[in-house]
Amino acid sequence: MDEAFISRNHVRLSCKGAHVVVHAAEKKAAAMGVPQCIAVVDDGGNLLAFSRMDSARIGSIEIALTKARTAAIRRQRSEQVGGEDAQTKLRIAMASRLALTPMAGGIPIVVDGEVIGGVGVSSGTAEQDVECGEAGIAALLG
Amino acid sequence: MDEAFISRNHVRLSCKGAHVVVHAAEKKAAAMGVPQCIAVVDDGGNLLAFSRMDSARIGSIEIALTKARTAAIRRQRSEQVGGEDAQTKLRIAMASRLALTPMAGGIPIVVDGEVIGGVGVSSGTAEQDVECGEAGIAALLG
Amino acid sequence: MDEAFISRNHVRLSCKGAHVVVHAAEKKAAAMGVPQCIAVVDDGGNLLAFSRMDSARIGSIEIALTKARTAAIRRQRSEQVGGEDAQTKLRIAMASRLALTPMAGGIPIVVDGEVIGGVGVSSGTAEQDVECGEAGIAALLG
Amino acid sequence: MDEAFISRNHVRLSCKGAHVVVHAAEKKAAAMGVPQCIAVVDDGGNLLAFSRMDSARIGSIEIALTKARTAAIRRQRSEQVGGEDAQTKLRIAMASRLALTPMAGGIPIVVDGEVIGGVGVSSGTAEQDVECGEAGIAALLG
Repeated sequence: MDEAFISRNHVRLSCKGAHVVVHAAEKKAAAMGVPQCIAVVDDGGNLLAFSRMDSARIGSIEIALTKARTAAIRRQRSEQVGGEDAQTKLRIAMASRLALTPMAGGIPIVVDGEVIGGVGVSSGTAEQDVECGEAGIAALLG
Repeated sequence: MDEAFISRNHVRLSCKGAHVVVHAAEKKAAAMGVPQCIAVVDDGGNLLAFSRMDSARIGSIEIALTKARTAAIRRQRSEQVGGEDAQTKLRIAMASRLALTPMAGGIPIVVDGEVIGGVGVSSGTAEQDVECGEAGIAALLG
Repeated sequence: MDEAFISRNHVRLSCKGAHVVVHAAEKKAAAMGVPQCIAVVDDGGNLLAFSRMDSARIGSIEIALTKARTAAIRRQRSEQVGGEDAQTKLRIAMASRLALTPMAGGIPIVVDGEVIGGVGVSSGTAEQDVECGEAGIAALLG
Repeated sequence: MDEAFISRNHVRLSCKGAHVVVHAAEKKAAAMGVPQCIAVVDDGGNLLAFSRMDSARIGSIEIALTKARTAAIRRQRSEQVGGEDAQTKLRIAMASRLALTPMAGGIPIVVDGEVIGGVGVSSGTAEQDVECGEAGIAALLG
């Protein structure tokens, strides 16, 4: 086979790694007193691990999933989608048929310069969601 | 307020309980050498915890979610949906707009005679999926 | 970072490789006189390349996409989904909320024992669809 | 049959023509160093050809498809949808149930004054997306 037909040496997030992210995010959320929904997806946007903490909003489940997917398949923090312009943010969300969201709380997981997944957190304020997601990734990257 | 307007003393599955189910199901799956997708939902069919083990099929994520939801909101094991008749099984799946499935591997979580949630397992054979789900519930109920 | 949190050395299908599959499938289809829709997705089920040949059915676009996705994320030929039992085949399609199909014409692309994507072909008979997909993969693997 | 019941002599984009657009857009994108998702649809908005270049975002697949569809079935450049008013742009996107987008990067393919299809490009800036789409159409129109 012609080597141009493939690329090699890609890194993949393991189930264990995904749960480390979820649990560290949960720990941070508990310390903050803010129950959260936390989702971790792989680089293709497919779900790896999820947790809805006691008292977290049911309405935040889908949002956490969408934030995680956005970070992974857009390869940027979800709040950066569409830059600074509010209209552009809405247009990207709609043009993606709601697969992407510009809401803060989705963070790509980067190893060796490659996005291998994303974490999405939802139920708190934008700052709280981001802080929990970052705590999750910090625990992973050690 | 008239007490007839509400009902009291309901049991609810906690986030911790949901993860106990997921992790025990994972442990059984690992012992069987069958990587699985495992979902746990509450009594409203809303996601509490999820795990996709290394090498489990991405195509099984949605199936595990559907099985768990079926068990919880139909309040029966998923393979019992529609009884023995194949046509009835399909018709229920379709009439529910694919929220419900008659595939084995969804098991209600029952405490004090009340369904408080459901577990759904997918990636193995029907028997393997059920065995993992039962191991998860057994760990919960102690 | 703990190495258990990731896995390494995964292979990824390139854009060039995906088009080799599409074009070889088209060539076979042309030789058979059967215009086809041909889709190639990566290991996460996300679209890489697509072609609808002149006179191929518009109604086959979605089917080709679903077959390709099925082969990739189920990691088996689409006609093998659900084994031999017609009811099981329908149940899996529905439990996946129509992400998966048991129709012949979806074939996983395997390199070094790992599924790196899938091709889906639709517009002809089951045999014709499979033959075109196989021709596409044969051209890739050389 | 009454000739008023039909219209004749319509032009249709061929599969070969669609791939010429895709490949010329890819070539421009490569020259710019911006990996892109590129979709070409016919006058009915139905997919003809697609390519996701190496390193283009998975999150741009759906956006490229939506831009191409918009240009073809709205018969105008996607950024012209809704004119200059931001609210009108959003309302059209929503009223179409997200089939249409006002994001730049969708360009109608016009032959003999008739729209015979559309190209949609996504992953770069608005200017880069448009430039790649225009390069694709220029190669087609010669």
